[in-house]
Amino acid sequence: MKKLILTLGFVCTAIFLFAQQSGTWIWYPGDFEVWLSNDMQNRRTERGTFFPPFWKMDSHYVLVEFHKEFDLQQEEEIAIYAEGKYNVKLNGKMLPGMPTKLKLGKGKQKINVKVYNQAQVPALYVSGKTVFTDKDWLATYEDKEWIDETGKASDQSGTTYVKAGYWNFNNAAQSPSKFRLPTRTEKAVASSKQGKGTLIDFGKNTFGFLTLHQLKGSGELSIYYGESKEEALAIETCETLDIIALEKQVGKDSTLALSKAFRYVYVEPKGTAAFNGASMEYEFLPVEDRGSFKSSDEELNKIWDVAKYTMELTSREFYIDGIKRDRWIWSGDAYQSYAMNYYLGFDSETVKRTILALRGKEPTVSHINTIMDYTFYWFLSIYDYYQYTGDKEFIASIYPRMQSLMQFCLDRRNTDGLMQGLSGDWVFIDWADGLSKQGEVSFEQLLLCRSLETMALCADLVGQKQDQQRYTKEATQLKAKIFDYYWNEQKGAFAHSRIDGKQTDNVTRYTNMFAIFFDYLSATQQQAVKDKVLLNEDIQKIMTPYMRYYELEALCALGEKDYVMKEMKNYWGGMLKLGATTFWEEYNPDKKGAEHYAMYGREFGKSLCHSWGASPIYLLGKYYLGVTPTAAGYEEYTIEPYLASLEWMEGKVPTPQGEIAIHVSKKKIKVQSPIGTGTLHIKSKVLPRCKQGTVKKLENDTYSVELKKGISYEVDYEA
Amino acid sequence: MKKLILTLGFVCTAIFLFAQQSGTWIWYPGDFEVWLSNDMQNRRTERGTFFPPFWKMDSHYVLVEFHKEFDLQQEEEIAIYAEGKYNVKLNGKMLPGMPTKLKLGKGKQKINVKVYNQAQVPALYVSGKTVFTDKDWLATYEDKEWIDETGKASDQSGTTYVKAGYWNFNNAAQSPSKFRLPTRTEKAVASSKQGKGTLIDFGKNTFGFLTLHQLKGSGELSIYYGESKEEALAIETCETLDIIALEKQVGKDSTLALSKAFRYVYVEPKGTAAFNGASMEYEFLPVEDRGSFKSSDEELNKIWDVAKYTMELTSREFYIDGIKRDRWIWSGDAYQSYAMNYYLGFDSETVKRTILALRGKEPTVSHINTIMDYTFYWFLSIYDYYQYTGDKEFIASIYPRMQSLMQFCLDRRNTDGLMQGLSGDWVFIDWADGLSKQGEVSFEQLLLCRSLETMALCADLVGQKQDQQRYTKEATQLKAKIFDYYWNEQKGAFAHSRIDGKQTDNVTRYTNMFAIFFDYLSATQQQAVKDKVLLNEDIQKIMTPYMRYYELEALCALGEKDYVMKEMKNYWGGMLKLGATTFWEEYNPDKKGAEHYAMYGREFGKSLCHSWGASPIYLLGKYYLGVTPTAAGYEEYTIEPYLASLEWMEGKVPTPQGEIAIHVSKKKIKVQSPIGTGTLHIKSKVLPRCKQGTVKKLENDTYSVELKKGISYEVDYEA
Repeated sequence: MKKLILTLGFVCTAIFLFAQQSGTWIWYPGDFEVWLSNDMQNRRTERGTFFPPFWKMDSHYVLVEFHKEFDLQQEEEIAIYAEGKYNVKLNGKMLPGMPTKLKLGKGKQKINVKVYNQAQVPALYVSGKTVFTDKDWLATYEDKEWIDETGKASDQSGTTYVKAGYWNFNNAAQSPSKFRLPTRTEKAVASSKQGKGTLIDFGKNTFGFLTLHQLKGSGELSIYYGESKEEALAIETCETLDIIALEKQVGKDSTLALSKAFRYVYVEPKGTAAFNGASMEYEFLPVEDRGSFKSSDEELNKIWDVAKYTMELTSREFYIDGIKRDRWIWSGDAYQSYAMNYYLGFDSETVKRTILALRGKEPTVSHINTIMDYTFYWFLSIYDYYQYTGDKEFIASIYPRMQSLMQFCLDRRNTDGLMQGLSGDWVFIDWADGLSKQGEVSFEQLLLCRSLETMALCADLVGQKQDQQRYTKEATQLKAKIFDYYWNEQKGAFAHSRIDGKQTDNVTRYTNMFAIFFDYLSATQQQAVKDKVLLNEDIQKIMTPYMRYYELEALCALGEKDYVMKEMKNYWGGMLKLGATTFWEEYNPDKKGAEHYAMYGREFGKSLCHSWGASPIYLLGKYYLGVTPTAAGYEEYTIEPYLASLEWMEGKVPTPQGEIAIHVSKKKIKVQSPIGTGTLHIKSKVLPRCKQGTVKKLENDTYSVELKKGISYEVDYEA
Repeated sequence: MKKLILTLGFVCTAIFLFAQQSGTWIWYPGDFEVWLSNDMQNRRTERGTFFPPFWKMDSHYVLVEFHKEFDLQQEEEIAIYAEGKYNVKLNGKMLPGMPTKLKLGKGKQKINVKVYNQAQVPALYVSGKTVFTDKDWLATYEDKEWIDETGKASDQSGTTYVKAGYWNFNNAAQSPSKFRLPTRTEKAVASSKQGKGTLIDFGKNTFGFLTLHQLKGSGELSIYYGESKEEALAIETCETLDIIALEKQVGKDSTLALSKAFRYVYVEPKGTAAFNGASMEYEFLPVEDRGSFKSSDEELNKIWDVAKYTMELTSREFYIDGIKRDRWIWSGDAYQSYAMNYYLGFDSETVKRTILALRGKEPTVSHINTIMDYTFYWFLSIYDYYQYTGDKEFIASIYPRMQSLMQFCLDRRNTDGLMQGLSGDWVFIDWADGLSKQGEVSFEQLLLCRSLETMALCADLVGQKQDQQRYTKEATQLKAKIFDYYWNEQKGAFAHSRIDGKQTDNVTRYTNMFAIFFDYLSATQQQAVKDKVLLNEDIQKIMTPYMRYYELEALCALGEKDYVMKEMKNYWGGMLKLGATTFWEEYNPDKKGAEHYAMYGREFGKSLCHSWGASPIYLLGKYYLGVTPTAAGYEEYTIEPYLASLEWMEGKVPTPQGEIAIHVSKKKIKVQSPIGTGTLHIKSKVLPRCKQGTVKKLENDTYSVELKKGISYEVDYEA
């Protein structure tokens, strides 16, 4: 059909490019997050081949209604922008066309806007003096506004309205579908001829879009990326590559379309294709520089710095696992990123985005990332988030999705009330040789129990008393069962699993160390676990920073902070000695040279920049600077500094209202906090002195000082 | 970031425009239907304003895996096309890039292709000599192909694979996202000056894109559409309009972007804007011309022809309600379109598409179109489809979605086990003044009961014995309850409803007439209903062709075919006398002139081309030509011709294998069938004679002849 389209009153997408004063783009909560995560997670390539996730990807609601009521003191004009086709109702009356401006009279005004968009997220931006889009607009994906034969609208709506989703798209031009992370140009630090090609070194592991300069001639340039030099040069086995075809190029620069992770790039030409130098567009999530750590130990400082850079690289549209390979959102990995983030950038928005993206949409047909344990970390992450931020609104908005996911879990229990991997369930726990996933693994029951406790806490927060009681009851019953079925008095440990209703002989670290910091054990049981499991060389060692995190946390909780400091320096320091510029997915000190780069049966399968490698940030912040919120959002908190082998340390820990600053030497502790009420715990050989506060004696050479916000405390003591 | 993108090995959509021999585009079943129905249903405008549906719109799976195994006798090369990013695995091994050609060796070959597409439906087309995409490829939205630490893929997949969806996109260039209905140019039949503008008449109600010829000058052309002349000229109240802006036009033709329904178009210019004549691009679904009807009664022939044209206009991407206003898929309306279609085009694909689009996706959060009765019609439509087509494959593929929707219904029953409108449920029944929807309406229970029987039948078909028993039990219990609660012996009728556990006084036609053709009543009860309800002038009359369909069907089932013939001529003939060129949404013979066009409190709110207006096609085919399948797919069928007031009639009724042709006069019946085994029922004053078959005497002047396929039967008899 031949069509000549003139200026019609109807266009598909109305976005106008001038900025406004107030308002923010809003959408159905979770929809932008799902849409953006689909995009991000489908950028993975393996040697040039598209490599998508293997779990269900969800989609946004294509048709969404937004509304809010106002009571205006004065007339005002508003501007309306939407991503998608839309209509506008003012006080129940539909307005002609797709109005971009609207005059509102004094008094009560109800504005409804309905937006349709199949390809992108239906989104709305309204700006005016007092009338503008914000988080208090309500949204629904079905307004059920039918009429009867006289044209009267239905009066019994079963519509569920929820508060709109939003982020920081605060002007009209900055619409959600256009979101891209920013980039900046970075230069290569070295370049050298290698065989038929050129090896370029960017000095450290990095992420972004490679630019080749002054392309010339015709033919092909094959680009092999490496997190290590070995990988870049291994053109048959490196994990990522690009091949670009040139035709009669005469000297222009070219930046590749798909981002990659690399420190080294090896480029081999074919034909007359040539280039002269390389740079890159470094892509990053802008996060405020808030948490910090410095000490008398340069190695430890380096560990903290490299951990911070590792976090910077793996904090993207969402918290991802690692930059080279998957670039997917893995719930267990993200759970650790959240924790590190609370001691680094305190970037709540990225935590919320990641939690929303992981949950996806109904119906729930499998565990998050298909992994049973990853479902449970998702629950745990939500109460943690509340504890650090005090953001009750988010808990209220996510609570229904928590409920339905928990129901999914409870429905999958076996006749013993335990969770066992059903067909399609991945029981992951850790990357560890020969780790059994058979039968009813104790670790999964423990995480389910903690998740039920989390449900009860959140139910209480959102005022769902019945739910709270139900979840508490389930948790209590399950906890009893866990001790009954798995605790082995003789071994002083939880057994790894039950098979066919019988406890297995196997003892692993996982359940035991989690039980420590979940505070499930008596003092005697704790001691037994410490001696017989955690400090027992015969129990299979952990080879991933992922689980080392929890292992060291458990040891910290048991007071073994000197030991943990040593381990931290050994383990993360070990990677640094091997030239690491970011921390790895797995590190086994017994391996040699390029052996370190192999994983999953592939020569360079291992990710050398993995978010779970960055845990020293968390450990140092929480157990050495010693800052922990004890009431939501740092309304209350404790500071329990511990120097271990250090002469001094200093740092900042972010809170919802600025940073807590701490300086600790063997004789003096300085603290200042912008928020809440803190308790400084001091271990001292002498009675500490503090001009700004009252020193209280506790027991065994321990003292406390109550901290009020805004005051600089100095305590003289002797470590 | 500045990017210069060269030829990369990675492009987003790979569609190549040369045709191939074999193969068809495939997708996740239902996904194309959901996607296309979103597009279609969001084209409604009301006086230029976008007017979307008020129920939840679903979306396709954005990431889908397709696979099939082959055993090749010889090497062959295949071509691969996808809508979206994709990867290909051959025998479990991922191939580099996005291959468009692939050589397959002899022997077993397993091909997996994974396609990602957020904006459109992930779709695949593979063509080769023996390896090509067809309906036997399997699809999933989560393949759960995780690996362990050694790189070994998981061996316990919980993946559910289903057979791929497809239609008729049989060459590579014809990809699903490009689907558009065809159009052809139609001319206006008259044009005249009216006030400031021009009134154009297209001779009959039609649908498509208006073309204005030789546009000139600058300014605006306001275009007002009317299904009636009155509507087109009512520039303040007509239902649809377009306004186009011209700037220094010098004589080009212009076709509007958005389709409209109209017989008349009134165009008013502003400024120097002008045009010279109009035509239109008539948009239509190509459907084979199969069913036919002709008789000695010219008025009846006209009724059939106009009904056929009404069906043609409302059969589009899907069966819609009407062409002017909603253009949405309404389950109750579609249910009637299916039935008419079985006596007209026998277009199974459009029936399946519509059923899939109506069901949408999980989770089920409300009734279909939010209407309780419309959910039930959806169930009923599926077994009807099977009965007419014998297509068991579709029943198997839709059965899981039937199960979950039935569960949704059963979960909404009250403590009495009855369905009552909950918050957000629309109890529709019919457009009728003052029709009560309060309490437990008997009509809804009756439809639920029939739906449960349908579930049992389908469960049996797909070999789900337990389900069959369960649904049968539920249906039996509910049926008993319906008689117990609603049957009023005194009134000889079902009561309309129960409120607060008490039967109401009200008797309406709906439950009573449905109970007739559901065959729920004893002979005595049938007689009571006929006399006290159906032929009782005191019971509120039905004003929609929608419910007249069922009313007349019930009367036909009760043997009142003479009466029904008269009613058909009166009612549908009445619309013709008012100049109808298509049949209406509602027709009340008592109204006058332009009163007929009003509805919903709007002057031109009524749709003058409504699919449910076309039911004479069904009634004439089923009760006068008298053809009904009695075993699935016309393996068995009956023909029971009835002339009523006609001298003769002839026609064709489509079956899965050609048409049954019938000619009936008062002395002779001629029949030929291409399929199954039929039974011709003859009412005759004399013993009929038939050379080609054996005449069997039944009772009361009725006889039968068994019909074999392919034989032309001639029966001499006396009506």
